[in-house]
Amino acid sequence: HGRSGRLPVNVKLCFDGEEEIGSPNIEPFVKSNQTLLAADLVLISDGAMIRTDQPSIDYGLRGVISAEIHVTGPHRDLHSGSYGGSVHNPAQAIAEIVTALHHPDGSVAIPGFYDDVTSLSPAERELLQQVPYDETQWGEETGAPQPWGESDFTFYERMTSRPTCEVNGLWGGFSGEGFKTIIPAKAGAKISMRLVESQDANKISEQFVAFVESLAPDTVNVSVDVQAGADAAVTPHDSPYIQAAMQAYEAGWGATAVLSRGGGSLPIVATFQSELGTPFVLMPFGLDDNRHSPNEHYRLDHFDKGLDTAVYFYHFLSQN
Amino acid sequence: HGRSGRLPVNVKLCFDGEEEIGSPNIEPFVKSNQTLLAADLVLISDGAMIRTDQPSIDYGLRGVISAEIHVTGPHRDLHSGSYGGSVHNPAQAIAEIVTALHHPDGSVAIPGFYDDVTSLSPAERELLQQVPYDETQWGEETGAPQPWGESDFTFYERMTSRPTCEVNGLWGGFSGEGFKTIIPAKAGAKISMRLVESQDANKISEQFVAFVESLAPDTVNVSVDVQAGADAAVTPHDSPYIQAAMQAYEAGWGATAVLSRGGGSLPIVATFQSELGTPFVLMPFGLDDNRHSPNEHYRLDHFDKGLDTAVYFYHFLSQN
Repeated sequence: HGRSGRLPVNVKLCFDGEEEIGSPNIEPFVKSNQTLLAADLVLISDGAMIRTDQPSIDYGLRGVISAEIHVTGPHRDLHSGSYGGSVHNPAQAIAEIVTALHHPDGSVAIPGFYDDVTSLSPAERELLQQVPYDETQWGEETGAPQPWGESDFTFYERMTSRPTCEVNGLWGGFSGEGFKTIIPAKAGAKISMRLVESQDANKISEQFVAFVESLAPDTVNVSVDVQAGADAAVTPHDSPYIQAAMQAYEAGWGATAVLSRGGGSLPIVATFQSELGTPFVLMPFGLDDNRHSPNEHYRLDHFDKGLDTAVYFYHFLSQN
Repeated sequence: HGRSGRLPVNVKLCFDGEEEIGSPNIEPFVKSNQTLLAADLVLISDGAMIRTDQPSIDYGLRGVISAEIHVTGPHRDLHSGSYGGSVHNPAQAIAEIVTALHHPDGSVAIPGFYDDVTSLSPAERELLQQVPYDETQWGEETGAPQPWGESDFTFYERMTSRPTCEVNGLWGGFSGEGFKTIIPAKAGAKISMRLVESQDANKISEQFVAFVESLAPDTVNVSVDVQAGADAAVTPHDSPYIQAAMQAYEAGWGATAVLSRGGGSLPIVATFQSELGTPFVLMPFGLDDNRHSPNEHYRLDHFDKGLDTAVYFYHFLSQN
């Protein structure tokens, strides 16, 4: 079955080649082509499986905001002997601001950040506990010496269902070989935040900017700029679409999928939801595969098995 | 006078071409050539005058320690969506460590750092208040929006007679154009400290390393390495050598010098003091001149007037 010579459902294909730079063109395209794109369901195969022998279907994604903070102080790098003690060091100032973004327990310190965060239901916490992901696998994948983060939540909840704030980049002064005893003229940081459902990216952006501005001492100049934002996206995990996906994995991949959430962000999914009112199914066929790192890659056997699974998905979708 | 065809005092010349890299060779040379270098006084013309119309004689210099802190976490840069919330971000960790080096009031937080710091006598505080350096000049030289530092001390005391701790460099993750939503694998900082008399560079180094190690959370790997250290140096400001220098400026420069302290460090001065037991006179002929910055330079008219002043110094030295 599924090879009867014709598609059992209507299919519209949409390609986005700009996802890694924030998809600047697809959102206006979706907004101005709602009739053309109207659909019952959006199917996307971005993201990562839990393990190569354990397919997963993501029913949730986190939103994301990216921002830059710039600190300037003296009009040039100063000799730290001549001026040290009298000038607020911009590298120290950016460290102070970055530190203030978290409480010592690992939670985010931006006032209002958790105001709209809804708790996972006991049923959903139980569902996520079925995902076979443990500290050993986390240790192998990350190489980090110890886990970190909010102790009231499991590993998997922290990585998928809790909002975060990360320093993606930090700079200031001299970082080459040897020493240059300066007070740097400037320093800065790139920050991104992952958001969960009910958090509004625009509101969080405003809270972030207001907080950084409130932290800025008058001994340096601080500017903060939010560059991009996208809301989180969640689709009902008990929908017939998800059921069809489960059946497709059984038949095409030869394994039972688990229902999971992705911790990353696909801003286009939130756009489809808000503009077209469309639920989504995410069937990831990648593994971690060094995403956003050197030697990022994709397994060819997953490509082949993923094709089979997708064909079965259209079949079961037409049956349900 | 002073041009009688012969030098009125014996002179030994010593050249150090490695001062900016910590003078790795001159200290062993001084230690193994004490008889060759034996002298009543060391005269050095490094450093900076207060203003071009206000010569100054430095009777004190701060010591210096340089150190690097390295933080490593995950074995590669990680996707902040996939792992954010579970991995301690090394850029956040270095920010936390750097922030902890100071109290909110600007004083250094390293335990024991001030233990051996002696207070300036009321007479010496008064002497330093004669140095015509004010907030306006500081503002023009630095361009910093507001002064910063220990409020119990004057500007000039903070810049010359109080110990400091500065971040000379800070790095971690992605600092290019645009965004890369990663948890960086590593981050670090270069730190230097300026020391005052009675502080021992070796002891402060040990206190610094112990403090950074005590700050290191077990969720990342932290290493700290102190690379170079030199004690502060102070010479009696009421000595006949200083009197001769005052007379030399009157005659050679045509202005009355003030007695001041330099905030920077000349490790060789401390070495001459400890190895040869020799007092020193610092007659700086430079101005700020963008030291340790692009377009560092030296004024030719100061070179000429400095030559005259030095000739008069030898003359008055032989008279006193």
